Amino acid sequence: MLTFIGLGLYDEQSITVEGRDALQNADRAYAEFYTSKLLGATAADLEAAHDVDIEVRDRTGVEQHPDDILEAAESEDVAFLTAGDTMISTTHVDLRLRAHDRGIETRVIHGVTAQTAASSLTGLQNYRFGKATTLPFPYAHGADGLPASVTDTIDANREDGLHTVVYLDIKVDHELTDEDEYMTADVGAELLAEAYPDLVGVVVARAGSPDPLVAAGTMSELAEREFGDPLHLLVVPGECHALEADALVELADANRDALETN
Amino acid sequence: MLTFIGLGLYDEQSITVEGRDALQNADRAYAEFYTSKLLGATAADLEAAHDVDIEVRDRTGVEQHPDDILEAAESEDVAFLTAGDTMISTTHVDLRLRAHDRGIETRVIHGVTAQTAASSLTGLQNYRFGKATTLPFPYAHGADGLPASVTDTIDANREDGLHTVVYLDIKVDHELTDEDEYMTADVGAELLAEAYPDLVGVVVARAGSPDPLVAAGTMSELAEREFGDPLHLLVVPGECHALEADALVELADANRDALETN
Repeated sequence: MLTFIGLGLYDEQSITVEGRDALQNADRAYAEFYTSKLLGATAADLEAAHDVDIEVRDRTGVEQHPDDILEAAESEDVAFLTAGDTMISTTHVDLRLRAHDRGIETRVIHGVTAQTAASSLTGLQNYRFGKATTLPFPYAHGADGLPASVTDTIDANREDGLHTVVYLDIKVDHELTDEDEYMTADVGAELLAEAYPDLVGVVVARAGSPDPLVAAGTMSELAEREFGDPLHLLVVPGECHALEADALVELADANRDALETN
Repeated sequence: MLTFIGLGLYDEQSITVEGRDALQNADRAYAEFYTSKLLGATAADLEAAHDVDIEVRDRTGVEQHPDDILEAAESEDVAFLTAGDTMISTTHVDLRLRAHDRGIETRVIHGVTAQTAASSLTGLQNYRFGKATTLPFPYAHGADGLPASVTDTIDANREDGLHTVVYLDIKVDHELTDEDEYMTADVGAELLAEAYPDLVGVVVARAGSPDPLVAAGTMSELAEREFGDPLHLLVVPGECHALEADALVELADANRDALETN
């Protein structure tokens, strides 16, 4: 049995009770933190909190050499841990299908996602979000200006009155510096201000942590501010219902008039 | 302090460890189950599992008479519980803003949502979903045929190659029968088959439970099948990447050729 467990957004407490029990009852546990990671807990913190051993795999160890994970899962209960929800990344779906091909039973125990948190922290209703997009680092994107994937998504959603989640790029174990690099919301807003200087954005920082921050402003304004520790993301509100506008004014200090022209 | 806690999707184990700790440390706990409920646990099950007392409020008790909840939160740690994530319903946002108006500190502890589960159980990538929609019971909708809100959403997403989550109507404590009524996926598919008989849909039943089911077929085919206990929802896949198609074929028994023309 191979059980995929989403660890949720922030630390060792972000997992569900069901997920924690499955982890503690597993014969072996593997994790990957190259698609996303917990900012509030290391693998050692997870091991200590849940009293388990966890083998952390890099991309090669999951995508090229998953055979020992799969072999173990043929005869034992194996847990595979990821930050956020599991299956968010294609690499998890691929591993699940490989298990399926071998006749190994699989199970999914969900975790909280950033999309969920972006909706509930801002008060914007979840069914009024369109497609999400990711804003890449300029060096990763490799061209001047904003990628069309970002502007097309924001434009199409605005045309339909829908909100947009803009995920900000993450490079885990950057190849040059060997450090993790997180695009902060001021950098994201500065990039977006090239095309949309007066568009209202909402920063959501540290979603799922005990210390989240929600702050609204035009992209030009947000580019001049700082929002503390990662992870950050941006939401571009579309047409707001009365209560959505109230929530952004009250909780994120949005300018009501600016919201109406968004 | 007023802490909004999402209970997650299914039973008393679906809450996060952080949420459970906050619930157990609260001086008082309230819950509402009129916007959504847990199919795998009653309020009494939650009380027993977490060793707390929970006062369940109906809609009037939250929306018209929240004063005692707010008064308690001025001097004590009060938990307010909801199924799924909190803030999914406007009624929660409204309560949060009322607390904010009184100067009460509020906090949000997230829970897993059906949208998250729909993505990870099907293997469809979360950033390739467009706006979601809800299919109402015909008697609630009050007109013949499918509401334009449903067909417009599905059509717009398909045009953009995006997947659509179709939530199926729930009536908690139906006014005539006093029982809960859940639209099952066969009924939802039958309604959708009026407009889209050959469109491939994917049923997701009992997401977040130990016994979820994922099954693909045309709307006409799905209308003839049964999918067991609620809750059910439907996903309409848009254009599928290779791995998304593989996942639907492997995990949901989809017909690969039919998917390509969806």
